[in-house]
Amino acid sequence: MPNYRLDIAYDGSGFYGYAKQPNVRTVQGVLEDALGPHTGDAITYVAGRTDKGVHASSQVVSFVCGDLDTARVLRSLNKQLGPEIAARSLSIVDEKFHARFSATGRAYRYQILNAPVHDPLSARTMWTVTRPLDVSLMNVAVAQFVGEHDFAALCRKFEDKSTTRTVVWATWRRKGDRLDLSIGAHAFCHQMVRSVVALCVEVGLGDRAAEEISGIISGGDREIVKGVLAPPNGLALVAVAYDHEPIPRPKWAG
Amino acid sequence: MPNYRLDIAYDGSGFYGYAKQPNVRTVQGVLEDALGPHTGDAITYVAGRTDKGVHASSQVVSFVCGDLDTARVLRSLNKQLGPEIAARSLSIVDEKFHARFSATGRAYRYQILNAPVHDPLSARTMWTVTRPLDVSLMNVAVAQFVGEHDFAALCRKFEDKSTTRTVVWATWRRKGDRLDLSIGAHAFCHQMVRSVVALCVEVGLGDRAAEEISGIISGGDREIVKGVLAPPNGLALVAVAYDHEPIPRPKWAG
Repeated sequence: MPNYRLDIAYDGSGFYGYAKQPNVRTVQGVLEDALGPHTGDAITYVAGRTDKGVHASSQVVSFVCGDLDTARVLRSLNKQLGPEIAARSLSIVDEKFHARFSATGRAYRYQILNAPVHDPLSARTMWTVTRPLDVSLMNVAVAQFVGEHDFAALCRKFEDKSTTRTVVWATWRRKGDRLDLSIGAHAFCHQMVRSVVALCVEVGLGDRAAEEISGIISGGDREIVKGVLAPPNGLALVAVAYDHEPIPRPKWAG
Repeated sequence: MPNYRLDIAYDGSGFYGYAKQPNVRTVQGVLEDALGPHTGDAITYVAGRTDKGVHASSQVVSFVCGDLDTARVLRSLNKQLGPEIAARSLSIVDEKFHARFSATGRAYRYQILNAPVHDPLSARTMWTVTRPLDVSLMNVAVAQFVGEHDFAALCRKFEDKSTTRTVVWATWRRKGDRLDLSIGAHAFCHQMVRSVVALCVEVGLGDRAAEEISGIISGGDREIVKGVLAPPNGLALVAVAYDHEPIPRPKWAG
């Protein structure tokens, strides 16, 4: 049977995360409900299981099922799920392709509005930080996450799974009252980017010395960082790379 | 008693327009409910009575009432109304200032996503047009609205009120798959900008000749344009000018 790759985007505000769970509305849940009439009970896999309230401008799903009229399925998905979810493309891919296990890179974006008052027209996708942030200090802080580290201090531990990850790049940019983080890694631990953001903001506010970050990482003490978590609405999965292709990143984060 | 100017912004998605109406949720309704404990039953006036679903990044309200702790009122409004509405500033102004009648200019923005599929993260503030739009033709079309015209063809007639208005500038810009209209006037008729946008889109799609526009305006036949209306979610009031100051416009629309 053919193996399909489906590229989607979504506004995570109305979902209890990507992964299907009983009794709550999830992206996977509504997506599988909408796919069902076309694909039967095909199991779907996903590149990045985003948390409650986290968005994706570029998410990848794969599933195996019988022949599909791909243009018709796309129209059907967009009609059922838009504008909250967009189905951008659906195509047959190599049988070895697996949305999650073939993915070798992920990039996230985090958006902050640094202003005295929130902005209603971007509130769904930006965290409003009202005290002034020093973006130079935030870049000193975030540079310390780059490279291969055991991120045990930043990650909820799942059984005996490794918490070592390789961050390929991480850069903040300020444009007026808006700050963007671009960060890429082969993979991230659970809630890792939101902890990175929260630590950088502590540094940017002057509440923590930028130099402390590498010690926090190498110390591996989960208690220090537990609960230091930026809100989910500023976060979006923006790119997934396969087969060790370069992870797409914005020019300014080059 | 002091006269106050309050600057606000809002996401219009959840409102049945600005102006208070019985039994529906309006911006004025929730704003006056939130102001009430501070201002009593002060009557509020507004620069632009936006329609159902239309946003404002810069809207001006005025009211007369006793002495206020303005910083406290602002915090209270933002706490009660955020992030859907933002109260940006509140200050005492000249007794002659009236948010509506002193306003001598308004600028609106209209955003279009010209792409095969909608974008979940901007769907609240952009109209998705899936067929390709020719922005040069749209600029030929929109230029014909500039100047003083009787816009009877584009406006719902209210009793014997004049439908003559002066459009100061109107320009479309394309950036990738995103089109922006910037338009400024001393005042607009009801639903006028959404009709301008819809006519421009007909031209941009090749469904109407760009040259027809001035004839439609001068013909004054409401039947031609009635119902030719772009959706409200792409529209936002972005600036209000007072006392004949220049209406603020983006550099690219200069």
